[in-house]
Amino acid sequence: MSTQDFAAWMGQIQSRTETALDRVLPPAHIAPQRLHTAMRYAVLGGGKRVRPLLVHAAGRVAGAAPERLDRAACAVELIHAYSLVHDDMPCMDDDSLRRGKPTVHVQFDEATALLVGDALQSLAFQVLAADLAAEDAAGRVAMLHLLAQAAGSRGMAGGQALDLANVGQSLSPEDLEFMHVRKTGALIRAAVLLGAHCGDGADAAVLERLDHYARAAGLLFQVVDDILDCSASTATLGKTAGKDQLHDKPTYASLLGLAQAREFAAELHARARESLADLGDRAQGLAELTDFIARREF
Amino acid sequence: MSTQDFAAWMGQIQSRTETALDRVLPPAHIAPQRLHTAMRYAVLGGGKRVRPLLVHAAGRVAGAAPERLDRAACAVELIHAYSLVHDDMPCMDDDSLRRGKPTVHVQFDEATALLVGDALQSLAFQVLAADLAAEDAAGRVAMLHLLAQAAGSRGMAGGQALDLANVGQSLSPEDLEFMHVRKTGALIRAAVLLGAHCGDGADAAVLERLDHYARAAGLLFQVVDDILDCSASTATLGKTAGKDQLHDKPTYASLLGLAQAREFAAELHARARESLADLGDRAQGLAELTDFIARREF
Repeated sequence: MSTQDFAAWMGQIQSRTETALDRVLPPAHIAPQRLHTAMRYAVLGGGKRVRPLLVHAAGRVAGAAPERLDRAACAVELIHAYSLVHDDMPCMDDDSLRRGKPTVHVQFDEATALLVGDALQSLAFQVLAADLAAEDAAGRVAMLHLLAQAAGSRGMAGGQALDLANVGQSLSPEDLEFMHVRKTGALIRAAVLLGAHCGDGADAAVLERLDHYARAAGLLFQVVDDILDCSASTATLGKTAGKDQLHDKPTYASLLGLAQAREFAAELHARARESLADLGDRAQGLAELTDFIARREF
Repeated sequence: MSTQDFAAWMGQIQSRTETALDRVLPPAHIAPQRLHTAMRYAVLGGGKRVRPLLVHAAGRVAGAAPERLDRAACAVELIHAYSLVHDDMPCMDDDSLRRGKPTVHVQFDEATALLVGDALQSLAFQVLAADLAAEDAAGRVAMLHLLAQAAGSRGMAGGQALDLANVGQSLSPEDLEFMHVRKTGALIRAAVLLGAHCGDGADAAVLERLDHYARAAGLLFQVVDDILDCSASTATLGKTAGKDQLHDKPTYASLLGLAQAREFAAELHARARESLADLGDRAQGLAELTDFIARREF
């Protein structure tokens, strides 16, 4: 895939994801209107859609149809969107800017933000459980289990808890990795595996390669995030820059220094690409996406 | 079933639900420890377990094995527990007492309470998706869909949003019912239907009777709750009494007056019992449970 082809593919997936999310979110005119308006505000019209991109790119490896992948992509993105809404609340990171717009509790109110997050999480599971083609029921249950585990206390929510507990602490690289594997890694991994589950072309060996890939890519994503938080501007990021330092949160940048954090990112980038080597051409999209994640500047 | 038999059955279901919840909740010594400790604090050792009782009583109608019902009972109770934790937070009802103990954000902190609720919701879906016997995969997906819908923006979370929007408003009985059908009714209905789905003995006609029953029972539960909130003491309830009035929330008691609210409860009680009439002896447990819900004093 040429760089131009990749950019076109990315734009196409982002656009179909937006359409799919628009369809699964309740219309704003249905009661409770304020809640539905706020849910749509939180989800639509922004974001890089990295997780949906991973779902679709991994789905290609398994030969999955894009229509089936949309469902998994929406589910993962809804979990991600809910986590951002709750994470931005005053009792958590207390942030007022997200995707270049006021955060949900600023634009609406705190109670609405709380309920938006809660309802988006329910919607994620509802979407993944809907419109079942009878023949793949067992696979669907496995996907639901995978997503629930990734979102829960031993996945993303647990990572958030560790993130809060780590404020002001000096951590070992192992502790920092333990936290990030959960906070960001779990959902990135779920995106890749859910994509692969949507197709018939991923046997146990392929799934193992993809799992290996996803672990490296998830950590890579977070290291790059840490680097950008302390080197990019708020305008570029569309969210408040420098907030890790402000909140005295240990990051790869603070722990290793910027230069070494960049080296670590390069190492993870190579490790992720390597995991794809045996998968051939069908993993080309995933490889390009990995380069995008490593080189992104926002 | 004699009153004594019913009391024994209720005690037995409450006890096996406690054991089942204890098993599905992550142990407190697993990281993140504080989050897991708080999750266990929020769920274990309290509550009437009305929803698990409904799951088991409806499961009897469908001839379901108690072991299968435990899973559904846990899932529904985890959703209920998460909603209480979030509902008690300062940005919502700002309550400090629940089940006779300090609420989660008081005992721990607000951020932990937020994450406890989030993680309990994920756990509910994880529990319902786990340990799949291959033969009932399609049924399991249907149950997951039902629970997600009941919890979401057009169910429980939507009811909470309406509850907040209604503060200080004078509502019509229709608007009040619209809110309560979502806030409390949706999960009560899900409990009954999930219980029925666990067995093979519920055909479409039986499911329709049970659905009819559940709608009346759900509203009954809420009307009784409204009555108790303004007539019972904090010590008896184990949660703050009189808080609807304090928060200027419209209730059946404030809308109809206490005497008429009691009449409405009696009418719903009769309607719920009637829905069970055709189901014969196997619905005896559900009938007794309905009497318990109607007559409870805490």
